Amino acid sequence: MAHITLTEELPGIRGLMAFRPFTASPLNALAETLLRTDEGLTKGERELIATFVSSLNDCFFCQNIHGAVAQYYATDNTLVDKVKADYLTAPISDKLKALLSIAKSVQQGGKHVSLTQVETARELGATDIEIHDTVLISAAFCMFNRYVDGLGTFAPNAPEMYQARAKKIAEETGYANSSPS
Amino acid sequence: MAHITLTEELPGIRGLMAFRPFTASPLNALAETLLRTDEGLTKGERELIATFVSSLNDCFFCQNIHGAVAQYYATDNTLVDKVKADYLTAPISDKLKALLSIAKSVQQGGKHVSLTQVETARELGATDIEIHDTVLISAAFCMFNRYVDGLGTFAPNAPEMYQARAKKIAEETGYANSSPS
Repeated sequence: MAHITLTEELPGIRGLMAFRPFTASPLNALAETLLRTDEGLTKGERELIATFVSSLNDCFFCQNIHGAVAQYYATDNTLVDKVKADYLTAPISDKLKALLSIAKSVQQGGKHVSLTQVETARELGATDIEIHDTVLISAAFCMFNRYVDGLGTFAPNAPEMYQARAKKIAEETGYANSSPS
Repeated sequence: MAHITLTEELPGIRGLMAFRPFTASPLNALAETLLRTDEGLTKGERELIATFVSSLNDCFFCQNIHGAVAQYYATDNTLVDKVKADYLTAPISDKLKALLSIAKSVQQGGKHVSLTQVETARELGATDIEIHDTVLISAAFCMFNRYVDGLGTFAPNAPEMYQARAKKIAEETGYANSSPS
């Protein structure tokens, strides 16, 4: 049971957004801006960063919904599982590995990001916008994860639920006019 | 020097927002929504929670700008310093102390919030909206702090700069049409 009385029995962040539309609006806009563009990082890469950070924060709902969206965009059938198990050996580009390393440091705290990590990412082809967006996506999921778990929301186990919703997010709704998950 | 080449020499989050207006817009909207209302928690209480969390995250820029805004609203001349030093003995209501305790747990991670903490806050008069907003403000500053420090932005030392900007935020601009600091 959630820590507050929610108006609708919706999983994860969706129940919180139904409870407080006032704050749902900018949160949805932020998720849409960070995740629904292919400028620099693709949508799939953005969702993968979001999933990876949510996994590090042990947020069940976020890592499953964004993991399902990331998997929707992937050609490798088990890409998300591989990245979560060990991103350094996963079948992703060296540039994305360097960016995930930065995302991991951001998850620990902003000051954990080192100049060496940033230089490595840049040498592997990452642009300033890609480095910027990686840091901000990681930071944003440190927010979303804390919001979802800090209020004790529930999350279903069934993978089918996340897969169905991920398809809808990717093909139809995005995040702007729905909840970010 | 920041980790990326910023287009303008502005302190903290302001340089990042000038660099990437695309993401600045929803971030500003979120700050405005979370901090510029007196619904339930007052603006001063909201800024105090933001400052407290930024202090726990050791984010110099955020704790100073939001500390200056929180102090702007306070009647006690050294309220912010007292809360940062020991919120349990600071001259604030027991309800706010209980909410700061929740904010502190959220800063450590969403799952650190206990049912007992929430029940204590509720017994001291906190509403569901106040508990919700406390969790979300704390979570949001775990994002803002990581964003500011994760990209290695600079922050001036002079308290006068923060005080002048705080006055402008409180009396004129807010956050919606400027940067959240």
